[in-house]
This record gives sequence, C-alpha cells and structure tokens, in this order.
Amino acid sequence: MAKFLTKKEDNYSQWYNDLVIKADLAENSSVRGCMVIKPYGYAIWEKVQAELDRMFKATGHVNAYFPLFIPKSFFSKEAAHVEGFAKECAVVTHYRLKNDESGKGIIVDPAAKLEEELIIRPTSETIIWNSYKNWIQSYRDLPILINQWANVVRWEMRTRLFLRTSEFLWQEGHTAHATKEEAIEETEKMLGVYASFAENSMALPVIKGFKTENEKFAGALATYAIEALMQDGKALQAGTSHFLGQNFAKAFDVQFTDKTGKLDYVWATSWGSSTRLIGAIIMAHADNNGLVLPPKLAPIQVVIVPIYKNGDQLAAISETVAKIKSALEAKGISVKYDDRENNTPGFKFADYELKGVPVRLAIGPRDLENRTVEVARRDTLTKELVPLDDIVSQIPVLLDNIQQNIYNKALKFKNENTFHIDKWSDFLDIINNKGGFIMAHWDGTAETENKIKEESKATIRCIPFDSPEEEGKCVYSGKPSKRRVLFAISY
Amino acid sequence: MAKFLTKKEDNYSQWYNDLVIKADLAENSSVRGCMVIKPYGYAIWEKVQAELDRMFKATGHVNAYFPLFIPKSFFSKEAAHVEGFAKECAVVTHYRLKNDESGKGIIVDPAAKLEEELIIRPTSETIIWNSYKNWIQSYRDLPILINQWANVVRWEMRTRLFLRTSEFLWQEGHTAHATKEEAIEETEKMLGVYASFAENSMALPVIKGFKTENEKFAGALATYAIEALMQDGKALQAGTSHFLGQNFAKAFDVQFTDKTGKLDYVWATSWGSSTRLIGAIIMAHADNNGLVLPPKLAPIQVVIVPIYKNGDQLAAISETVAKIKSALEAKGISVKYDDRENNTPGFKFADYELKGVPVRLAIGPRDLENRTVEVARRDTLTKELVPLDDIVSQIPVLLDNIQQNIYNKALKFKNENTFHIDKWSDFLDIINNKGGFIMAHWDGTAETENKIKEESKATIRCIPFDSPEEEGKCVYSGKPSKRRVLFAISY
Repeated sequence: MAKFLTKKEDNYSQWYNDLVIKADLAENSSVRGCMVIKPYGYAIWEKVQAELDRMFKATGHVNAYFPLFIPKSFFSKEAAHVEGFAKECAVVTHYRLKNDESGKGIIVDPAAKLEEELIIRPTSETIIWNSYKNWIQSYRDLPILINQWANVVRWEMRTRLFLRTSEFLWQEGHTAHATKEEAIEETEKMLGVYASFAENSMALPVIKGFKTENEKFAGALATYAIEALMQDGKALQAGTSHFLGQNFAKAFDVQFTDKTGKLDYVWATSWGSSTRLIGAIIMAHADNNGLVLPPKLAPIQVVIVPIYKNGDQLAAISETVAKIKSALEAKGISVKYDDRENNTPGFKFADYELKGVPVRLAIGPRDLENRTVEVARRDTLTKELVPLDDIVSQIPVLLDNIQQNIYNKALKFKNENTFHIDKWSDFLDIINNKGGFIMAHWDGTAETENKIKEESKATIRCIPFDSPEEEGKCVYSGKPSKRRVLFAISY
Repeated sequence: MAKFLTKKEDNYSQWYNDLVIKADLAENSSVRGCMVIKPYGYAIWEKVQAELDRMFKATGHVNAYFPLFIPKSFFSKEAAHVEGFAKECAVVTHYRLKNDESGKGIIVDPAAKLEEELIIRPTSETIIWNSYKNWIQSYRDLPILINQWANVVRWEMRTRLFLRTSEFLWQEGHTAHATKEEAIEETEKMLGVYASFAENSMALPVIKGFKTENEKFAGALATYAIEALMQDGKALQAGTSHFLGQNFAKAFDVQFTDKTGKLDYVWATSWGSSTRLIGAIIMAHADNNGLVLPPKLAPIQVVIVPIYKNGDQLAAISETVAKIKSALEAKGISVKYDDRENNTPGFKFADYELKGVPVRLAIGPRDLENRTVEVARRDTLTKELVPLDDIVSQIPVLLDNIQQNIYNKALKFKNENTFHIDKWSDFLDIINNKGGFIMAHWDGTAETENKIKEESKATIRCIPFDSPEEEGKCVYSGKPSKRRVLFAISY
C-alpha cells in the first residue's frame, strides 16, 4: 500500500486529493480555482477525447470552433438561460495594459474600456445560435451537427481538482433540426453515446434518466443525464444531453422554411462532457495503492521493469524486452520500458501501481533462463509467471479481461449500494450513515424535492428511463407516485 | 473559374477573403476580431494538429494544460516580456453578473471585483514557468518537454481571418533544460520540425533563419523562424522557436542542482505555430477556382460524383462506388461520395474545386459499360479516363504526385521571386512593383533596419541559416556586411 496516500476509509476526500497530486495528474495553479493538468493527467484526457471524438464522428458530427468571448447582451436573450448561467462568470472589461506613469508597474489602461463587456463562455449556446442564425434559411441547411472541444469558465467558490474548477476543458455539441422528433432523437442518441463510452471505455456503469425541472439545464425543455456511483456512495453526473426545444431559436430568431414552404423555428439540442470524467475514473476505481485505470483509457497499458544486478544482465534483458515491446506496439498496445538506473525495481513497482498502469511485466536473469515473465495485474494485485513465448498473445486478452473485471467490480458495488427505500427514516439512515443510490417514490412536486434536499442534502439525480411503472407513495410526503426516482448526495 | 470569387490578380486581399468565406472555412463573429472556424476549416486544423502532435511526440514531447488566466503581476516579472506582450490583452476585472435592480437587464456586479486583474494568456511563458518552479529541483527533473494546445488572445485592431485574429488557436511548446547547449539544440530541433511539416505536409518551401534583435520574441535571447512566400509576394512567418536563455528561470526563480551539486538557473525554449498556418496553405496554393489543398492536409482527399439520369443508373453507379470507396478507405484515404439529388454534377464539380479537394472521380452509365472512371486533378485541372480496375491502386500514387507537384510549383514560385539585390533603388523597385523575397546585404544595425522599414515597409524576415559568408555592402547604408539577409513585406 502506498504509505503516503491517506487511506480511502479514513478520509475519502483527502485520499482523492492526495491521489491526484501523487499520481501527477494535476495540481492547483496560482490562479484561484484553475488547475494545471499535468502530462499524465492530460494523457488520460487525450484518450478520452480520442474515443469520444471517434464516436461523435461515427454518429455524423463534425467539429468547429466558436469564440471564447460572449457579448454580455447575448445572455439576456434567453430568459431561463440568464438565471442559470449569467451569474458566476469571468468578465472582460478592458483590452489594454500600460506602464503606470508613477512607476507602480503595469496597470489596466482606463482608456481601453470595452463598450460592451465580454463574458468568458460558461457554455456556448448563445454565441453559437447567434452564428446559426446566418447559416440556416431552409430545411436543406438542416440538420447541423456540430461539436466543439473548448475551455469554459464558471467562477466557482469551492473547487476540487477535475471535479469542479473555474476553468475546465470539455466538449459541447450543438445541433439544429427541422423537427421536434429529430431533436429528441438526437438528445437520446447522444446520451446513449455518453453511456456507452462510460460503460465500455471508463468501465463505469451508469444510470440513464431525465433530470427534474429543478435540476435541468437553464434553457432546456428536458435534460437527460448519466449518473454514476462513486466509492464513497456519492453520485457523479458524467454527461448531459439537453433537448432545447425552440428556445434558443426563438431567442436568436433562427427560422427556416420547411418542405411545405412554411416558416418555423429551428429545434435544438446540446450535450456535454468534461475533464470531470477524469475525476470519475479516479473515484470509481482507485484504491489505497493508487489509481486503477481501465486499460482502454490508460496512457501506458503495459510497463516493463528489468530486474538486474549488472550491465550485462540489463543488456540481455533489454534485448528481449525490445522484441516484446515492438510486438505489443504493433498490436496497438502502449508499452513503456522503464530502464532508469537511479530507481530500484521496488520503487518502480510502487510508482506504476500508484499511476494505475494495468499490467506490469518484470523480467530478470532467471526469467531469461527459464523463458518466463512475471505478469502483475493492477486490478487484482496478483502475479503469475507466463512463458515468454506466450506473452505477446496473452497481453491483449489480459487487458480485455482487466477492463471487464474493473467494470464488473464497479457494477457489483453499484448494485450492492442501490437501495429501494419506502420510509423517510430509512432514507435518512442510508444518506447519513452509508451513502449510495436510493430508489424511492416521489410525488413529483418541486416543493417536496426541495424539502428532501434541505433535510437530507440528497437530490434527485434522475428519473431513470428504465424505472418501471409502479404504484407507490412519496417517501417524504406520502402522496401518490407512479414510479421510483434516483436520489443521492452528489458531486 | 468560380465567378463569385474576386480574381487573384485584381485584388489579392479580396480574393483571399472571398475564398475563406465561400469555401466555408471561417467567418467573422459578433465579437470584434474573433472568428468562427467552420467545420471545413476546422477539419483542416485537425489534420494540422494531428500531424504536428505526432511529430512533437516522436521528438519526446508530452502535452499538458495550463490556465487561461495569468495574474497581472506575472507580466512584470520578465522585463523584456512586459514590453512585448503585456499591452494589447483582454483583462478580466470581475467575476459576477447580476440583474440590474432598476430593470436594465444584466450588469456587471460591482461587488465582484477581483483583487488582482487576470489577463487572458497572450502566450503562456509566465504561468508555465511559475509552475515549473515547483517541478524542478534537480537535474534529474530535467529536461521538461511539454507542449500545450490552447486558445490565446492578443487584442488586435486590424484583423483578417486566420492570419490575424484577436483569439486564435495554437500550440506552444515550453521546455526546460539543464544546459545552454541542450536548450539551443531543442530550439533548432523544433524549428526543424516546423520546417519539415511545412515542406512535407503543407507543400510549402520555407527559409529557416534567425530573427534580428528588433524582430525577436520579447524575452528571448534568440528567435528562429521559418518564412514562406505567398503568391502576392509577401512573406508569412509560419512557425517560431525561441531560445529563452535563463530569462524566465531568473524571473520566476527556477533553480536546480546540477550533477556536481551546484545551483544554477534552468535554460528554456518555447516554440509555437497557430491557425495562421491555414491562411498560409490558402495563400500559397489557391487559384481563381478556389482552394488547392495539399493531399496530406485535405479533409476530403477524393470526392466521387455520380452522373446519372434515373434511379436505376444511380443504383448501379452507387454499387460500384461503394466498392471503390471502401477499398480506398482501407488504404487510409478519406473519400466522400456525393450522391445528393438536389445538385447537378456541374454544381458539385465547381463546389469541390472551390473547396480544393485534390482528386475528383466522376462515374456515369457509360463508364460502367466501359469499366472506366473519369479522374480530375485539382492542382492541374486536368482529366483523364482510368480503367475501373486500376483506380484503387492508382489513387495513392496520384495523391503523392499531387502533393509533390504542389510543392514544386510553390518552390518554383519562390525561386523565381527571390532576388539578390545590391542597389537601394532596385530594392525599392522590387518592393513597390513586384514583391517577393529580397536577399540583400545589411550593416547589422537596428538603425538601418528601422530606416529600411520606414522607407519601404520591408522588414528583415530572417538571417537565413544557409546564407553564405560573402563580403558586401549594406544595400541601404553602404557599410560593410558579411552576409545577405532576407527582406520582404510581411503578413
């Protein structure tokens, strides 16, 4: 066990922070609330990006780039959006600095004040729909299926690396459609993309559902989300997809001529996921030894450590390793050979455990004699000797195996920590003492939702798509309810 | 010829703007000086990014991400950097908006004023070296070889799509080294990466050289650059690599213990290239029919247009096309089959010419009978009939051919428009009437450099690495000079 990590059981929050820092994923910067994503953390983000981007393109989307700045007045155009988004934002008011005449160093030039303040985008619906206005005249211009990879800023008072930072990296899809049905289909499709990415790549089981009116995106008619359970029993929203109706089209006056020649407003969706996903990967799978990365998103999938006493031994090992490495790389597997001389094998073992590398191979002189390799799995921390001649064919199978095992473990955890609760006292007991997902009846009112939040801090994470119709009584108010919804304390 | 394009000969600048808009690459946004990069333009950028990123990684670099915001005080730390960079910047002064109490809509909340203003990064040396300070203690922590893909903002008064915009996308490498020699080697290596990217991928011949003291990066000891000649005879800087010495290490107090136990300041480099490269690709190769994209950076390398009179014919053509398309895609070639029914083949031909797609295939019923395909090259605008059975094997060769031809054409243009000039009157004549690269002697003083700029608008683009030693007299002052330098009017 990594001794310098706080134990998960002792202080989950501190364990998480320690891990992000010690595994060299990210750190806080000198700018309040903004993080530095270090190379190892960024390499995970590159893997996330590559796979999501592939999935977006496979579903017909293209990338584009819109300005960082949004004129302040744009936020006033969509009423609900104002309330939700135009508050905690970074505001640019000036465009020039100058040397202070009295020698105080650099000051903001008061003469260079903008006529209209510019807001750093907290999300880009407004600036994008202001562009779409000029792109759309007829149904022939539709659909527009655009995604943007970008940084956004939401001024946060309490920040945590990856989970909540003032600046973060994300992707935001913004699509325009001729019909309501097509827009709803898109909203569902993209939630499906997020869900299958979470399950297949992140090894993270998720629950798909609708957000309540209270929790939905400012400006949306409906928000769909995927929710995942972290190891401390809290929920983490891992992707959202919004059906925006005609709200933004009306706000920015985007009309089109349909096939019959009739003028109508365009239907919209937007959907996003962010660097927060890295927080989810950490919190869902890591243990007291460090990260446990799902092989599909691990920057290094296999690390090879030589065990040697002298240069001759190292040379012989390196020769064998070179063959294994290039054979694995030819199969698309990322391999690192760590032959640094300043660190002991023990140090290296601990370091790659901390960094969550799925498979570690160790090769010493005796292995060369016996034609074996020691194979260690990060997920189970087990080791076995494998014949040298089988290693290249076995690794891909092993990586699949680990991916599946990590998923199964997370699924088991989710299932064991999902509770069907009918009494308010049981609800509070779970929330206060155990954590987890609670499936409970709710009377459908915002009033009850708010009271539950006040008294328990739990919120309705979503109304699961697959929650069966079932007569019941609201866990709080006792009023009738048709189906259970998902409650949890959330990140 | 595309009739709606201004002719290059009539008004080069208008031709460029028309082309960017009509080929759907980018447009101006509602925010002064900021562009929207549209999907087709962004797809070119993605190709540029992918190849540069591959080259950076192949030379040992990794990616990371640093904050968008830089505290104002950071700019005061490196004296030369202040002068060059801390002027025309976007300044964040507040972090909250609110609804005006008198009902005027949204206003900036005066209570939410930042204690220290934040500058949107115009470049990231300061914020990055402020982080490196904590990462570097010993020579074992070196080198650090980091690149960042990011947006930056430099408030520009006169903007042009891709060439000069207030916000632009770029990459910036920031490396830290134990020795001066290693840092200089890195500076040269990365200029080499840019040069080989320009020549091999962009099909753009470049001249590598040093910037003069006047023209170098603010804070650098030396700036190396690649310069390319555009079709209007102006130079475009297509990438820079800076040897920063110990300037930033001293400004941010970044010291390390070397192998002998001695404390020393760290040596630095930085290097960058931006979306401006897209402007260079356009201006170097495009003609009066539209873009001419080098195959290696073309989002669509081959477009296939069916020629048909009825549904049966289309079905038969589509069946054949499907086989060609998947065979080409299996070779890693990007193919678009445009079977849209609303547009005539003639319209499609013109559209893909405008968009610079390197190869166009047209197939009609007679082609199916004769087992032929019509192959049109964008670079030469020539057509030929190729046997259907040969097309899949011929396309990769043809694409290489086109790439090479575009490069050769640009090289010929550069060579024909590079003038060795010894008289000031000839210098002025070339600059005022013809444009191009001028290789001329210069006395090495900033005074002369400035006077030449004042009188001719030409600047020293670089002191070429390969400019041979040669006794001569300064073209302006007549004073002695040891080698010719490269002058031009620049973008």
